[in-house]
Amino acid sequence: MSNLVSKEIRLKSRPEGMPTAANFELAEVKVAPPKAGEILVRNAYMSVDPYMRGRMIERESYVPPFQIGEPLTGHAVGTVIASENPSFKTGDIVTHMLGWREIATIGSDPMSALTTAKIDTAIAPMQAYLGTLGMPGLTAYAGLLRVGALKEGETVFVSAASGAVGTVVCQIAKNKGCYVVGSAGSDDKCAWLKDKARVDATINYKKFPSEAALTAEVKRLFPKGIDVYFENVGGIHLTAALSNMRLKGRIAVCGMIEQYNNTQPAPGPWNIIMTIPLSLRIEGFIVSNHYDLLGDFLRDMGGWIKAGKMHWHETVLEGIEKAPEAFLGLFKGSNFGKMLVKVGPEKV
Amino acid sequence: MSNLVSKEIRLKSRPEGMPTAANFELAEVKVAPPKAGEILVRNAYMSVDPYMRGRMIERESYVPPFQIGEPLTGHAVGTVIASENPSFKTGDIVTHMLGWREIATIGSDPMSALTTAKIDTAIAPMQAYLGTLGMPGLTAYAGLLRVGALKEGETVFVSAASGAVGTVVCQIAKNKGCYVVGSAGSDDKCAWLKDKARVDATINYKKFPSEAALTAEVKRLFPKGIDVYFENVGGIHLTAALSNMRLKGRIAVCGMIEQYNNTQPAPGPWNIIMTIPLSLRIEGFIVSNHYDLLGDFLRDMGGWIKAGKMHWHETVLEGIEKAPEAFLGLFKGSNFGKMLVKVGPEKV
Repeated sequence: MSNLVSKEIRLKSRPEGMPTAANFELAEVKVAPPKAGEILVRNAYMSVDPYMRGRMIERESYVPPFQIGEPLTGHAVGTVIASENPSFKTGDIVTHMLGWREIATIGSDPMSALTTAKIDTAIAPMQAYLGTLGMPGLTAYAGLLRVGALKEGETVFVSAASGAVGTVVCQIAKNKGCYVVGSAGSDDKCAWLKDKARVDATINYKKFPSEAALTAEVKRLFPKGIDVYFENVGGIHLTAALSNMRLKGRIAVCGMIEQYNNTQPAPGPWNIIMTIPLSLRIEGFIVSNHYDLLGDFLRDMGGWIKAGKMHWHETVLEGIEKAPEAFLGLFKGSNFGKMLVKVGPEKV
Repeated sequence: MSNLVSKEIRLKSRPEGMPTAANFELAEVKVAPPKAGEILVRNAYMSVDPYMRGRMIERESYVPPFQIGEPLTGHAVGTVIASENPSFKTGDIVTHMLGWREIATIGSDPMSALTTAKIDTAIAPMQAYLGTLGMPGLTAYAGLLRVGALKEGETVFVSAASGAVGTVVCQIAKNKGCYVVGSAGSDDKCAWLKDKARVDATINYKKFPSEAALTAEVKRLFPKGIDVYFENVGGIHLTAALSNMRLKGRIAVCGMIEQYNNTQPAPGPWNIIMTIPLSLRIEGFIVSNHYDLLGDFLRDMGGWIKAGKMHWHETVLEGIEKAPEAFLGLFKGSNFGKMLVKVGPEKV
């Protein structure tokens, strides 16, 4: 315990536009034994998520920016290897917010207490708590059911449908008896969505690269229009959806990944005026405003997993050194389902 | 009664882009005595409203399009001059939907019954029922309080603030103890908004013609941001508002008058992505979905008028021949407050 070292990834410089490997640096630190109230966790998996791009900018936002020279943070799962906190014992499997490193020292301050939790690996493998059973899953659940106010039997369009959030959105909607169309960036992803997520139809958006083409394809698949559009992408996906919404439709705005690396303003949706005759609601959200749904979410999700009505897919890169590459891949659609980095052993 | 004639304005052709006088024609028709269930109304005032532009297009919408060669329709007030309907007697003052003509023959079908009502001129002059006490007033009330979910003490930005809807929005917000800034197109309109509508500040938007300039001025007047933006205009007003919204802000989309005559798609708001970090809601509405508020509206509005806390301004053109000019003026900002056409005597 006295000679522990941990590799970690630090933010070396703030990206302008699309981030590159040069914005990150690998470092190695000595890990001190835990002080009173602290635990040490050997991370097994860490998550990379699109929202982290926003934290790389120096600005006021709903989460404070990452600091230059400091290790990045984010969701991770691992095993407690030393504990001076009576709530945890060695061998506990936990999720927490100190990813981007091999060994995390977690304090007992209120924020750490709120974001560190033991998990039940009888329900699903530990890494599922970074995806379907974790923040992306709750994002899908809150966004579709509360923000999108989905009703049984409605029609649902999902962009980035094969991503960590999108796959869950598609399956919750199917479990609610809805007609679901998912958009994704390859035939393989589309095939998985039909086979495993049980969506009614898919759009490989790379085959419909113009607004007119995508709008026509959405119209073909939604002859009576869309009740809920779950927005992960922005750009022509949003415009095509707006041109095909039904009366009193809802657009739950979870992300606009196409725009996170823009250095110039991208054109907005010219047809936002459709909100008026159709009484549309467009509502953005962040998952942290919906943590009150966590209990309902875990209950429903556990039931769906047990019943074989919730599947997921993971893209896993091996080694902490690959974390920047995994993160950059999110913006190229390299991930299929949840993008993870395996940074240590599952069993310690 | 047997030789009554009525002048009326018909749609001669469908406008493309900005309508012109050539899209309208004046006609004169003989008026038959009322049949069973019918009443004749000599109109005193008729309303022109921006939404009528949408009805001039041949398309599916929430109201059917106007037909070529037929008289236009819209809100009007006048005096019953003959009645074969037991619900009305000669001399009653009524509002109804058969404007754009001097004498209206109103049947007893369900739609006519729903839209024809006696009014109380003890509360306000008859023409106020086409503005503050009528459809524009209810639009303001429902849009601000229900769609915008305004709370006491919030900050409110109103575009087209000196229009028929905007003047009411500003004063309801002030009556609810809010900080209110209105945007209008002349110093005279801005002065009226400060003096009569009691807004805290105004923006003469013609002095801030670029997005950057308007955004900076909105920021100056809302150092802590906007809780509710009441959208009547579109274009850079929407973009400037989006750049200045507060956490959990609401944008009630009532109209986008800048865009009604576009023949090419106008750029949309590049910063709609702000909906995500700020959990913003953008919601469009049409007043006809909120008629259930009519009772509350008339009670509150009557109280505010009586208490001297609700003022209005009218721009009145004289003569049915002027109706097209009045309508076209809406898109040039020629109106100050409610745009009306006086088409007959107040007292018959």
